[in-house]
Amino acid sequence: MKRFGVAILGATGAVGQRLVQLLDGHPWFRVTELVASERSAGRRYRDTVSWRLTTSIPSQTGELVVKDLSSHLDCDLVFSALDGQVAGDAESSLASAGLPVISNARNHRLDDDVPLLIPEVNWEHTAILAGQRARRQFSSGLLATNPNCSVIGLALALKPLQDAFGLSEVSVVTMQALSGAGIAGVAALAIVDNVIPFIADEEAKIESESLKILGRLQGDRFVPADLRVSAQCNRVAVLDGHTESVSVRLRTAASADQIRQVMAGFTSEPQRLQLPSAPLRPLLLPDGLDRPQPQLDRDRAKGMAVSVGQVRPSSVMDWKFTLVVHNAIRGAAGAALLNAELLVVQGYIT
Amino acid sequence: MKRFGVAILGATGAVGQRLVQLLDGHPWFRVTELVASERSAGRRYRDTVSWRLTTSIPSQTGELVVKDLSSHLDCDLVFSALDGQVAGDAESSLASAGLPVISNARNHRLDDDVPLLIPEVNWEHTAILAGQRARRQFSSGLLATNPNCSVIGLALALKPLQDAFGLSEVSVVTMQALSGAGIAGVAALAIVDNVIPFIADEEAKIESESLKILGRLQGDRFVPADLRVSAQCNRVAVLDGHTESVSVRLRTAASADQIRQVMAGFTSEPQRLQLPSAPLRPLLLPDGLDRPQPQLDRDRAKGMAVSVGQVRPSSVMDWKFTLVVHNAIRGAAGAALLNAELLVVQGYIT
Amino acid sequence: MKRFGVAILGATGAVGQRLVQLLDGHPWFRVTELVASERSAGRRYRDTVSWRLTTSIPSQTGELVVKDLSSHLDCDLVFSALDGQVAGDAESSLASAGLPVISNARNHRLDDDVPLLIPEVNWEHTAILAGQRARRQFSSGLLATNPNCSVIGLALALKPLQDAFGLSEVSVVTMQALSGAGIAGVAALAIVDNVIPFIADEEAKIESESLKILGRLQGDRFVPADLRVSAQCNRVAVLDGHTESVSVRLRTAASADQIRQVMAGFTSEPQRLQLPSAPLRPLLLPDGLDRPQPQLDRDRAKGMAVSVGQVRPSSVMDWKFTLVVHNAIRGAAGAALLNAELLVVQGYIT
Amino acid sequence: MKRFGVAILGATGAVGQRLVQLLDGHPWFRVTELVASERSAGRRYRDTVSWRLTTSIPSQTGELVVKDLSSHLDCDLVFSALDGQVAGDAESSLASAGLPVISNARNHRLDDDVPLLIPEVNWEHTAILAGQRARRQFSSGLLATNPNCSVIGLALALKPLQDAFGLSEVSVVTMQALSGAGIAGVAALAIVDNVIPFIADEEAKIESESLKILGRLQGDRFVPADLRVSAQCNRVAVLDGHTESVSVRLRTAASADQIRQVMAGFTSEPQRLQLPSAPLRPLLLPDGLDRPQPQLDRDRAKGMAVSVGQVRPSSVMDWKFTLVVHNAIRGAAGAALLNAELLVVQGYIT
Repeated sequence: MKRFGVAILGATGAVGQRLVQLLDGHPWFRVTELVASERSAGRRYRDTVSWRLTTSIPSQTGELVVKDLSSHLDCDLVFSALDGQVAGDAESSLASAGLPVISNARNHRLDDDVPLLIPEVNWEHTAILAGQRARRQFSSGLLATNPNCSVIGLALALKPLQDAFGLSEVSVVTMQALSGAGIAGVAALAIVDNVIPFIADEEAKIESESLKILGRLQGDRFVPADLRVSAQCNRVAVLDGHTESVSVRLRTAASADQIRQVMAGFTSEPQRLQLPSAPLRPLLLPDGLDRPQPQLDRDRAKGMAVSVGQVRPSSVMDWKFTLVVHNAIRGAAGAALLNAELLVVQGYIT
Repeated sequence: MKRFGVAILGATGAVGQRLVQLLDGHPWFRVTELVASERSAGRRYRDTVSWRLTTSIPSQTGELVVKDLSSHLDCDLVFSALDGQVAGDAESSLASAGLPVISNARNHRLDDDVPLLIPEVNWEHTAILAGQRARRQFSSGLLATNPNCSVIGLALALKPLQDAFGLSEVSVVTMQALSGAGIAGVAALAIVDNVIPFIADEEAKIESESLKILGRLQGDRFVPADLRVSAQCNRVAVLDGHTESVSVRLRTAASADQIRQVMAGFTSEPQRLQLPSAPLRPLLLPDGLDRPQPQLDRDRAKGMAVSVGQVRPSSVMDWKFTLVVHNAIRGAAGAALLNAELLVVQGYIT
Repeated sequence: MKRFGVAILGATGAVGQRLVQLLDGHPWFRVTELVASERSAGRRYRDTVSWRLTTSIPSQTGELVVKDLSSHLDCDLVFSALDGQVAGDAESSLASAGLPVISNARNHRLDDDVPLLIPEVNWEHTAILAGQRARRQFSSGLLATNPNCSVIGLALALKPLQDAFGLSEVSVVTMQALSGAGIAGVAALAIVDNVIPFIADEEAKIESESLKILGRLQGDRFVPADLRVSAQCNRVAVLDGHTESVSVRLRTAASADQIRQVMAGFTSEPQRLQLPSAPLRPLLLPDGLDRPQPQLDRDRAKGMAVSVGQVRPSSVMDWKFTLVVHNAIRGAAGAALLNAELLVVQGYIT
Repeated sequence: MKRFGVAILGATGAVGQRLVQLLDGHPWFRVTELVASERSAGRRYRDTVSWRLTTSIPSQTGELVVKDLSSHLDCDLVFSALDGQVAGDAESSLASAGLPVISNARNHRLDDDVPLLIPEVNWEHTAILAGQRARRQFSSGLLATNPNCSVIGLALALKPLQDAFGLSEVSVVTMQALSGAGIAGVAALAIVDNVIPFIADEEAKIESESLKILGRLQGDRFVPADLRVSAQCNRVAVLDGHTESVSVRLRTAASADQIRQVMAGFTSEPQRLQLPSAPLRPLLLPDGLDRPQPQLDRDRAKGMAVSVGQVRPSSVMDWKFTLVVHNAIRGAAGAALLNAELLVVQGYIT
């Protein structure tokens, strides 16, 4: 199989570092370009990155000289981990220039002709790309996005419930990890011995993105899921791994055992295609009265599985459960990677 | 005014220590007896307690020799901070022996003839005590309880909404502090860089106790509130102060401003009576997009006020908000103290 | 007594906020001016400060409109909590303009004619001020500084040992709190589940400043103490309160009891003068095998006392002990305040 | 090569769990027996252990039925992770019964005829075992121990300095992780936002054990190193990884570069023998001004390497540096494992 050269935009940030880490030894992709802000451009990656991961910087990637956004990029596809303040235009330009852009940034997620992809949930939404290319006059370029980190965990847990029982209402309270805010996003003084019940724009993202993901692509139009979602977001002193307390109202009755069964048995297109980054089981139900927990469960299946537990009836909605998702892997860098793998197999990246 | 001698049961535990602290310098009450397990009995309090508070051990109380539960107690009333495993019988015995027992323990909270008191919320529930004394053949004794720490914060925030708009559904997700589990209740290894989505029996307590508190006393019978409450409980690495993400469905329409106004303006019987431990305002609405936070808001009004923020509409219920309550003060020791003060003024303790 | 108007430079930072807090209700001083960066200038303090303390913003001070460094200041003295990058020139200018400047910044600490003051340790060093005023042509202006937060705790603990037994060598390892780095100085991701064994310039400050403080003023010249000091500095996930593991070599023999006695009995000029911010005892020796601890001991004597424990022999030096100092109060804002009080009583500020 | 069956004593504790984890897939050893307290005996390991590691319980080991200390053990050697209160006699009995006992417990560490082993430091101390077997009438049994977790990191860093320059004095201040105290050893309430400057018996262990390890075996007698060691121990809120601030006095002069070189170049017997658990380099010197850090460096070389940094001159001793050691792997379970591997290759375990 062809080996694809990839560029990482925003390579020195938290998500960029995770991309560098996850792409080390990848069977299809090889990092050929690293792009960061002007402060880093022109320096070796190893010398400019403030590396925060517990594995070493991959030796070859560490030697690459960082470029800035105005440079020519020698690659077959682009992963964007840019900040939302610059991502929008940069990604459009690169796609116009013929590059497939797989983005973690928020900017294009809700665009009418851009798939907001979780391969296990809505792999068929990539069909919009033909129209996108026509409308935007992209040749080999394309724009594909993954959702917000909190939404990815939630949508993965909801999908088998939606398929089996139908869903009408979802209420979620998140307890989000520090890495979701970037490397210097939360001051230590503000979060030790504390909870912060506010994350800018996060609740709106969860409430809107989940409807697009769980909706249908009808012709060349996304029809949002017929579903109401309410989110309350909190930051807690956890390094990695978002915890979410979820309540759902179903359209048809289900038992706790049925809910656990459809979750534990859930597999989808990435598993069928055996994509390199796909977990064997997207949803795990760890044993133990007090699970899932971010410290113990975030790294399951190399950080690509969502752990679910505490399935119990609700006296207000129908059912309650708790999930843990590794926000930086399944919720960001690994999400983008799995999207790219899907697009390769589907023939959109060649 | 008469000075009442008080005994503290469970005086070496987390709630017992808080009672010792809060009773220091109290205008009506004076600690005359400290009771703890056999391991501590016979030793000076100062020498046996593993004191965890940042104020010093009150000098006189520190010199008291700790007794065990079988000892005669020289006092006018009893605060019980006993563990639920021993509290039930011990409290009944003391009340039978003529002592008013003001308990923080779970055992008698749901008894048909025992008030589950938050003075701002249901001060009139003490009227059950006449029947209690008759039925249980208590002379000067009585049993009065305060709710679980999470419920106190919740019920205080709900009360003005119930009064003004009516309440039909409440969904609450808690992020609870360590001190709520007692001094050695949570191992550090289990909670640093972690969230634990399970606290034994806590959800059931929240769901049942809130209905009794917000209900009515009709004759000699408690009629639970016509309300559905669903709780999901999590432990986080916070020393003191429970944070709660709440959603409510109201019976009549309200605006965000109205909700904030009825909360900020809320006062009740303890404020009217100017009880020594009553906060001027039971509910505070601190300024700031990212408030309330346990680190910054738990100590407001000496830990006796509940801080509320993030009032915003819900797409599933009607309204969402976040509250912070000092679990060890307003949620436990201070709750018991305020109950005792109310019962003194109402003439039940003489 | 005259009420002095004071200006606070750097009023929105961590030390500036502490000054605002400590000056609330001060018997001699009243905040009349707040100075901060251009971003804040022109706005009400209450509206621009990101207030991180658990007490409320003092109501009158909160209404003051923040000025910038170029503004005229209506005050009798100035507290500088400026960042070292701008403090040097700004402080000199204000002193030249006739204002006594009491600084927490590093810039002038080691100047030949500037006292580096801890009132209990070297109150007599203020005698240098006559020469300073002459040399720098200050009229009523003056420059006085307090040491680095780690040094203050250390020098206070060393002073009675130096007086009683003589000191020849000191080795200190610090475990420093987050607030010492300012409000956003340490990223949460970098310190949760971690220790950082590096704080820029901190070791050099400890090693040089302690010699000046513990030295003598001979005529108009500072003679450093004949002492070698070695420091190793670490950052830990503690909000407030530096912990220091200290080893000392004495010039004459002492027993552990003697060491504890001279520490526990230590008082000095601020206690004799009954300065408003002076603790009754600058050094406390809390009971308990496992003390001192920042969580439990930092707030003793309103944060102005240093707690010492673990006094035991060393097999390499002579004695070892551990101290805890509230870095933001005794180690910064309270240090400046006590310096100002001393200078008022000594007649340097009128 | 023969596959050895191994028993793990104290299999449900923190060190026992690490042994189970590290032995999974080991090329020479296979877990055949798990021993724990009576509370666990008779139950499947999977059902009784409170597993705290982020990898899953190895599937076969998880199915083993836990035995108690009185049971017959079917194995070729024994790893003891017993608590010191029961380890002494139990280990002696098993060795008398013919089993090699590789212990992490404190009890026999300082026995005259028991090697206190760090294979890179004093592999030749195993020569004492012939005398041990003769004196204690062990046939195939033996007792070998590894040091305290803090000592292992320290002795590994000191060894190349001792060899190259000679050592006369060592002063160490530790900042120790929570896992060193066992699964429930430190209460969360006691360590969040705190440092505890006391760990029972720890300083004495560091001061005595290091002399034996760095000493010589002369005939059948251990001659302690001619060295003075002083330790001050602190507990911090870190999950795994002890950080140590070290000062040393050398017998001959050295430069910082020489110190870094002998450390970075250090290899020893386990590297020569290519023992399965031996790190390629026992000492790593990670790049970066602010390294080593437990969060980033504890897992280097699968937790078997010690990371060193901050090498700089001391004004009191000669040199200062900081080290990080994974207390639960290199400092306990991995230490025992490497000892066993050495004893196999040396022919003491057959």
